[in-house]
Parts: sequence; C-alpha cells; structure tokens
Amino acid sequence: MGILLDKINSPFDLRGLSVDDLGVLAEEIRDHITHSVSVTGGHLASNLGVVDLTIALHYVFDFKRDKLLWDVGHQCYAHKILTGRRDDFAGLRQQDGLSGFPNPEESEYDIFSVGHAGTSIPTALGMALGGQQKGTDESVVALVGDASIVNGVSFEALNNLGLAKRQMLIVLNDNSMAIDVTEGAVAKFLSKVRLSHTYEDLRRRTDKILEHLPVIGKKMEGALHGFTRTLRMAITPSRLFESMNIPYFGPVDGHDIGSLIKLFKGFKDLDRPAILHVYTRKGKGFLPADDNPSKFHSTGPFDKKDGNGLMKSGNKTFTQVFGETVVELAEKDERIVAITAAMTDGTGLGGFREKFPERYYDVGIAESIGVDIAAGLAKQGLKPVVCIYSTFLQRGFDQIFQEVSLQGLGVVFCIDRSGVVGNDGPTHHGLLDIGYLRCLPNLEVIAPADAGELKAALAYATASGKAVAIRYPKDAVADADMIGDDKRPAFVSGKSVVLRDTDCDVVLAACGCIVSEALTAADKLAEEGLKVGVVNARFAKPLDAEIVSLFFAGKMIITVEDHSVACGFGSAVMEAIAAKTQQGGGEKNGKVICLGAGDEFIKAAKRSVQLDMMGISAERIAEVVRKL
Amino acid sequence: MGILLDKINSPFDLRGLSVDDLGVLAEEIRDHITHSVSVTGGHLASNLGVVDLTIALHYVFDFKRDKLLWDVGHQCYAHKILTGRRDDFAGLRQQDGLSGFPNPEESEYDIFSVGHAGTSIPTALGMALGGQQKGTDESVVALVGDASIVNGVSFEALNNLGLAKRQMLIVLNDNSMAIDVTEGAVAKFLSKVRLSHTYEDLRRRTDKILEHLPVIGKKMEGALHGFTRTLRMAITPSRLFESMNIPYFGPVDGHDIGSLIKLFKGFKDLDRPAILHVYTRKGKGFLPADDNPSKFHSTGPFDKKDGNGLMKSGNKTFTQVFGETVVELAEKDERIVAITAAMTDGTGLGGFREKFPERYYDVGIAESIGVDIAAGLAKQGLKPVVCIYSTFLQRGFDQIFQEVSLQGLGVVFCIDRSGVVGNDGPTHHGLLDIGYLRCLPNLEVIAPADAGELKAALAYATASGKAVAIRYPKDAVADADMIGDDKRPAFVSGKSVVLRDTDCDVVLAACGCIVSEALTAADKLAEEGLKVGVVNARFAKPLDAEIVSLFFAGKMIITVEDHSVACGFGSAVMEAIAAKTQQGGGEKNGKVICLGAGDEFIKAAKRSVQLDMMGISAERIAEVVRKL
Repeated sequence: MGILLDKINSPFDLRGLSVDDLGVLAEEIRDHITHSVSVTGGHLASNLGVVDLTIALHYVFDFKRDKLLWDVGHQCYAHKILTGRRDDFAGLRQQDGLSGFPNPEESEYDIFSVGHAGTSIPTALGMALGGQQKGTDESVVALVGDASIVNGVSFEALNNLGLAKRQMLIVLNDNSMAIDVTEGAVAKFLSKVRLSHTYEDLRRRTDKILEHLPVIGKKMEGALHGFTRTLRMAITPSRLFESMNIPYFGPVDGHDIGSLIKLFKGFKDLDRPAILHVYTRKGKGFLPADDNPSKFHSTGPFDKKDGNGLMKSGNKTFTQVFGETVVELAEKDERIVAITAAMTDGTGLGGFREKFPERYYDVGIAESIGVDIAAGLAKQGLKPVVCIYSTFLQRGFDQIFQEVSLQGLGVVFCIDRSGVVGNDGPTHHGLLDIGYLRCLPNLEVIAPADAGELKAALAYATASGKAVAIRYPKDAVADADMIGDDKRPAFVSGKSVVLRDTDCDVVLAACGCIVSEALTAADKLAEEGLKVGVVNARFAKPLDAEIVSLFFAGKMIITVEDHSVACGFGSAVMEAIAAKTQQGGGEKNGKVICLGAGDEFIKAAKRSVQLDMMGISAERIAEVVRKL
Repeated sequence: MGILLDKINSPFDLRGLSVDDLGVLAEEIRDHITHSVSVTGGHLASNLGVVDLTIALHYVFDFKRDKLLWDVGHQCYAHKILTGRRDDFAGLRQQDGLSGFPNPEESEYDIFSVGHAGTSIPTALGMALGGQQKGTDESVVALVGDASIVNGVSFEALNNLGLAKRQMLIVLNDNSMAIDVTEGAVAKFLSKVRLSHTYEDLRRRTDKILEHLPVIGKKMEGALHGFTRTLRMAITPSRLFESMNIPYFGPVDGHDIGSLIKLFKGFKDLDRPAILHVYTRKGKGFLPADDNPSKFHSTGPFDKKDGNGLMKSGNKTFTQVFGETVVELAEKDERIVAITAAMTDGTGLGGFREKFPERYYDVGIAESIGVDIAAGLAKQGLKPVVCIYSTFLQRGFDQIFQEVSLQGLGVVFCIDRSGVVGNDGPTHHGLLDIGYLRCLPNLEVIAPADAGELKAALAYATASGKAVAIRYPKDAVADADMIGDDKRPAFVSGKSVVLRDTDCDVVLAACGCIVSEALTAADKLAEEGLKVGVVNARFAKPLDAEIVSLFFAGKMIITVEDHSVACGFGSAVMEAIAAKTQQGGGEKNGKVICLGAGDEFIKAAKRSVQLDMMGISAERIAEVVRKL
C-alpha cells in the first residue's frame, strides 16, 4: 500500500502528520485507488480528483460527530480508505464486499446510501435543521460536484438554505466535468470563471478568505457583504449565489492540502451556511485517467501500465444495439431527436450525437427537464427518444405523468439499466419502472427479449406516434439464434409471441431479457420430461389477452420478470385476470405465480448472481416448476 | 356580461379596440370572473390579477400559431374568456363543463393540460427547440408565477435555456405571493426588489426597454450587456438571471395594458430567450379578494357582496381531522416536526404553524426538497411529518425511494387529496400513490377509513419509527358511528379489521375512505338477503395475511379502493395470493375482482359522481355483487 497509508486506521491518525506528509499520503491513496480499481473496476477519475480534499476534510472535522454528505457518492473511495476500510478494497463492488458508494451499513462515517445526483445539499440542509432543532453543534458539510449542483433538487435546497440559522458548509467540487462534459448556463459560467484567473489568483484568494473569516464569524452582515465584494474578480460565480443570499467563497485550489485545512478550520466555526468553491482535476495522478477522465469515470478492470481495458469481448450489449438502431432509424426519419441527461456514452448515444448534433440534446443531470423538453418537442410534431437510466428516470415520474401521459404525446423512452445492474447495487437498480409507468394511461411498456426484439421494438415505437417505454438491462444480449427469426414477427400493440408451445399445464410468461432464462429453463425441463410453455410477453402494457386466456384454460401461469414483483408484469397479468373474472371469467380457473424481485434491496454482486438471488435465473425457474 | 365583452368572440376581436377600451374590457372580464366563481367556486385572486396581462398577450400574439404555455394554469380564466369560451363559465369546473385549467380538448388555444407547478418554462423550451428543429418562426411565450419559478424543474429549464437559439419569452408574473406567502431566497430577493422602487420607476423602465429593444434585436452582444447594466437599479433580479446568461428586463407594471402591448411587440421579434418581469396584484378589482388573496386563491361559491362563503357545514374533512390530530400529537412529542410545500392551509397545517413555528417548514412549491429535508431531520432523530398532496408528491418519488426507503428512515407522509378530487380534475387526482409507494421496501402504506381511523393511524405512524404513508381524500369524513368504536382497535402493522362477518361467499376488502361505501353496500345487500363480509384493510402494505386466507378458503374477494386498479391495493392482494400459491397455496382457490379507477383519466365532476364513474360508490359495488 504505502508507508504512511499503512498506519492510517482512522481519520484521527491523520492528526499526527505534517502537511508535507499528508501530500505523500495523498499519493499513496491515489496509488491504492488506481490499483484497486484496475482489478475490480469502479469509478476512477473522480476518486483520484478528490483525494486531497478528502484528507483535508477528515483532518479538520470529526465525521463521527460531524456530518459529511456525499453527492452521487461515487467519489468516496479516499473517504472509505481513511475511515477504516483501506484493506477491504479487494472486495470493492463485489458480492459481500465494499460498496462503491457511501453505505451506512458499512461505517458510521457514511450517513446516507447515495447514488443519485443532487441530494447532498438537500439532505445536509435537513440535517442542519435537525441540529438546529435539537440545539446540537455538530458541523454539517455537503460535498457536491459542478454537475450535480445544477440538478433541480439542489437548486430547491439552495433556495431554502435560509431556513438554516447555523453552520453548514457546501463544498462545490468543480472539476468542470460531469460524466460527460457538463452542459448548461451554470456550467458555462463556471468554466468562464475558470479561464479568467491564474493559479496565483487562487493562492492569493485563499489568504484573503482566511484573513476575513474571523470577521464573518462575528455575523457582521455589512462586513460580509463588503468582503465578498473585495474578493470579486472580473467574473465570479458570487453573483449567482449572492442573489440567493448565500455567502460564496472561492475559487481555491482543491489540491493544496495546507490551505484547505486552514480554510476548513475557518468554515467549521462560521455560524451560517456558506459555499466554498474548490477546483480539482479529475484523474489526477494517473496519466491515462487524467488524459481521458470520461473513459475512466466508471471503468471495468484495466491494465495499470496503459489503462487499456481487460474486458473480454462477447455478445453486444443492449446499449450498443440501441445506439446502432437509433442511428439507423434517425437516418430514415428526420423527426427523430434524442435527449439524454449527462449520459451520452452510458446510454449508447455517442454515435447519434456525432451523426446528428443538431438533433441531440444533453440537458445535464436534470432528468425532469429532459422529459419536459421531449414533451414540447413532441407537441411540435417531432419524435423525441428520451434515453435515461431506469433508476434516474424516477426523477421524471411526475413529468411523464402530466406532460406526456395526460397529453397523450408520442415520446419514446429508452430505459437502459432496467432490472438489476450488478456491482453498482441498490441505488442503481431499475426494478420499479414497469410499475411506475404501467399505471399511467396512454403509455405502452415494452421489454424486448434480445437484440432482434430491441430493434423491432424501437422501430415500432418510433413509428407508433404513441408514448412507448422500452426497458432493457445493463447486459449482453442473448445469442441471436435463441429465439429464432420465425418467432420474431413485427411488433403489434399488445401482442405476445409463443416461443414454446403452451398446450401443457404450466406456461412461463416472461417479460424482457429474462425470456432467455425462461427458454433455457424450459428446454432443460423438456429434457427431464417436463413440458412447459414459454411466452415472450413483449408488452407489459397493453397486456395480451392471450396470456389471460391461458389462466381461464386452467393453466398455471408463472410470470418471470427482471423487476420488482410489486406492481410488475405479473401483477398486470393478475389485474387482467381479475377484470375478466368480473366480466364472468372463463371455463376454468388456473393459478398464477410471480417470479421477480421481492420487497427488499438487492446488494451489489454480479448481475447473474443477482438474477439467481431473485429466483429468475434459468436454474431457479426450473426449480419452481419441478416443485409443482 | 359587459358591453365590450359581449363582442369578443376571439382574440382577433381585440385588435379593433383602443387601449382605453381594453381597460374597460379588463374590468368587464374581472366582473365576469368574479360572478362566475361566486357561483361555481374556483380560483379567483390569481385570475383577477392577470387579466390585463392576458389581454395584452392576446392583443400582440396570435396564439393559434404562437404558443402560450401556462404554469399550473389556474390563472387561465381570462384566457378562456378571450378565446371563445366566455359563455361557458356557468359550467366552470362542473361535469362536462369548462375545465378550471388549460385543456387542449377544449380549445386549440390551450397547448398543455396543466395543474402542477414549474412546467411552463420546461415545456416552452421544448416547443422552442421544436420550432428551431423545424425552422418555423412561431413565437413561444411561457407565463410563470414567482412561486412556480423556484421549482426545481423551472431552474433546470433556465439552466438549459441556452439550447434555444431563437425567440422565447418568459413572462415572470410576480404577485409576491404563492398560494401561501412565498418562501425562499429568490422570493425574498424579489420582494426586496419590489420595495426598492416606486410606481414611477416602473413607467420609466418600460420606456427605456422600448428604446433599446431594436438594438437587442440586432443581436449586439455588447449592446445588450451595456443596456441591462444601465437599467439596473440599486437591486435588480438581473444578477440572478444574468449569471445564467438570460437577458432580464423589468420589473414593469402588469396592469398597464398600453405599455405591455408595446413591450410584447418588441419581445415578439427578439431572436433569443428573455425574461420580462411583470408586477401584478392578486385579487385586483374585487375588494374581498384583494384584501385576502390567500382565502380567495381557491374558493367555493361565495356571496359577491361581502365574499362570505356559501358552503353548508357538515362533517369535518379529513384535512381538518389531520390538522387537529397532528397538533395534539406534537404537544406530546417534541420530536414531531412538519413540512409542507406551499400548502399550509390546504394540508391543514395552519394550526401547527401557529402553535409550533420553530418546528414547521414551508419549502415553497418544491416537493423534492421537502422529502429530502424530512430525510435529514429523521437522520437526526426527529419525527418529520411531510404533508403534500398525492399528485404533487409524485415530484418526490425518487427522493422517497433513495433518501427515505433505501435508508430505512422514519418519515411520515400525510398524503391529502388521495383518490379522486372532484372539480379540479385529472391533473389533481391522487390515484397513483398506493402504487408508487408500495413498491418501495421499508415503507408502510395506510389508508384510514374515517376520522377515528385517521387519528389512530397518525398516532401509530408517529410512534412507529418507520416510514409510513397515510393517504386520505379531499372529502368529509364518514359519520363517526358508521364503523363503531368496537371495530376500532389500535393500529398494528399489517392488521386489518373485520367490520361485517366474513363467513359468507363474498367479502368486500376495502382500503381507505371507501370503506364507508363498502359498508353501505353490504348493509343494503343484507336487506336484500345477500350476505357479504366487509374488511377494513387499513394497510395497503404490509398486507394482512387474513385477507389472503379468505381466498384460500374459496371465497370471492372484491377489493375496493379510491385508487387506480393498476398497481393498487387489489393488485397487492393478488401478489400475496401468488406468493402463497408458490408456497403450496391453501385448501381451495377463490376468486378476486378489483374495483377502482381504470386505465383512463377521470374528468372534473363532483367527487361523489366520480366515485360512481369509477364503480366504487355503494350502489355500484352492490351491483357488482348482485351480478355474481
């Protein structure tokens, strides 16, 4: 690991080190992170960028008592290393190992499990108000990136910051980069600021802030105002924050541990909320990541020498198939436009952006406006394709309800990372989308089973003029011959496809990528002499009446989905059965069993392991049938 | 109506009038609105405030072609009057009558059905981008209030406004008042601005803007910058918007029709997004509303002479019972704190605010941060009670998922306006909450049947330390003796209560306020000799296993809920049955029928009519049983 790092078992061990030693320690931590991530995969560039900042924070504050709130939290590795978890990094993001995000179950130093953007200022405000309510004086620190601070809920928190009449420090970690290049007015403003001064300016500013902090501590309104004015350069972001009455300080150098320590000591005693604007460099200390922070935002295992990936190539991913297909469709139909929320590469839109820059909108980490822009575009007769991960689209739920579903607009939602997502764990699973979408009128929900199905679904959706959601997982597609072209008619609204004959007692009704597991299970059972039917549902909504009629033919339907059982596809099947029962039912009644995620959070592990834990791997499905 | 108003059948008829005549027309429109609302009830104060503004907009723009986007939309009455709907106001908010909000089904002048806050700038941006994409030159105007502009999605839109390289006018209608007094830093800033100048300043500013508009039209960056600087008074909101690179103009007088017309003519030709800040007075022209705009935000029928309400008094509402109960509980437990999003009176928190101002937080129309503040408070050991209407809580869905459910925090959600809401219609129904909440682990969902049940539920929830959602409608509570105290044991997690014996073939399992309809139906059927059981489910989650066992005793279960059938309580019952089936099931299989809202939007009407339309009134429930 490192000579110094070996001795750091808790943040208190930092106190014995000189500022120079802390600098050496920072290098050792960066090495530890780079090495660990090269083996396990994980977030790299952002973690390398905040090492110095993290050391300085832990040096000054006591986060057993004080509260440190992370935003997204993918940059918490140095924090984990300093808080007793140094030796657990071999298990980073692995089953039963260290989470890649803050996790209160791991350590009292982690306050909230996070993974979504924009929550650090809001929750820090809540905790500050709690301290105020209880009369306690713990410090509260929110660490937020320049990409997260433009999220709507961050702004709502800034606007309500005046509720806190006590200390609360917001550290704005400005690396001028979200996962993709940050978009939007605030980002442009910050980047103008960045270009407008030299490194020497940063140093001078630190000294000036330090000079004035005691005065600010005395709550001298006038002094504070005059002071921020003297700090102002030709352009500073102070205007933005000052108009919301939030004292703003900075920018300062986020790699100068000595200065940061002095600053944090000052801000610890300030009796009001304030923002400290800090510059850091993503990927600092590891050349390939420094050169290409976007590639090393989230990475699989790689070769430490050159940064080249060690992933084996296999089948294409659903994401890749989507990315290729949307370009093909857009070539034929110029009304197709694409929208993403800071996830161009993650959603496979890189090719689209390159080919159709004028038809492509990245709104930054702001999913709600992403949906609303799509609604406006659809009103104008265009065909917007909104590409947002399932879990993040939860931020747009109300917008999908009012601005899309209620208006009956033709917006296509391409929902990547649906189902379990593997190593990112609970904050990133997309296990709720069928539920929160199928309750909305005027919206169809499709889950394609493989590459061919995804292509067909996307063609159907963009041609339909309707609101259609297409959900698919973070996974490779099944082998092309698994379903077979004869079982792949064009998509028709609400029509399923029978893949294995249903003239038997038990039928697997599978929805989405999990069809491949159902097929494998059925074929295995057939070898054992147990015949089961398999239906590729295609649509979670509208539901095929053919599936319902299997029930009234007295069969056992086993629904299978990579989704929560609550409100899921199986639930939709049973609602349709209940509706038919009300109308008089059918010949005889069958039974229904629903396989999918239960009422609990599924921890980080390989996706295949998670499918097994959920009981929807081929083997587990087969077990259920055998038991009947 | 009025001499001039009688002749206005479309906005084109305005063109023939002089500015003085337009002023007279404004008075006639205000009279028409006041009279109509005094008969039908509706939104009053805000509508009176924007009459002059609306006339000027329609005078200048052609909103058959140009696009006018409303925010919330409750202030659209003058717009409806001018666009051919003058004579339909007797049916305002009534069944088959005029909607109280913009509605594209009514008129081509209404673009989006709205009712939630903060959507006008986002959707206007989408439409502006659509125009840009198609190369059309229609004007786009977003009208947004000072209360709505601080909503997160508004900010996300402002931050992304740079995507539009064309005309797009944002009219900031500043009446320094949301439904309740506007909170937050931006509001405070705007109110400081308001106090800092005289009426004469407003006039001078209008002239200055007009002088400079042609220059701005020529895209002279420098000129624009210099110009906004010369306009700046000691304090102006320009800083806030300028830091986001949005040209800001104003404030100007929103009742000076002549000036507004000149200004809009100028802004029609501006080839970039801009904000015009306009002052209006809520309740203008009707003294009782002018004096008490909060009372007349949304009102029932009233006497035009004095503004006194004409509502008959009857049983208390669920809202009132909640408001009293939360104060009682907070007196005994000082950890209880309350949070609302600009709906103090609407959610019944007026008494709480008065009694515990230090334990009360109003975050403005910003539901997401409301949930996050609660999460932070709960982490600090407090007991936050979040009071947000069901439909607006959809804005906090992702926050409830990550910041509450995933953390297992004890936040109590008191969800008013659950179920159908009567005359406000589709944008305001709360038909999705059981679904979007019960899919989340660590969260219980309760629907109390009447006043006594609500009191007991709230006591249970605040004592539980768990996340608990309590949903109840905009309605009066049922008579106290309907359930009877012997049928009202203390709440136990996941336990239902049998109200009418279930030793019969058919059992009504009712969830929430609709229990009273189920009881009435059962008693009516009993008189007819048809015996049916009634269970008060209490919990939609966790579900009582006793309800499930009725199925495996071979009974017909009819679930009844004031909620969408999709993902609702009935669906939860069937999921539990499927789980038990997987474990081997029971003696015999029964059947399930689910009554609730179908897959469509339910139009404005009286709530009792809507319950009937949904098939969950006592009479309709009885019909279903009779048919069996």
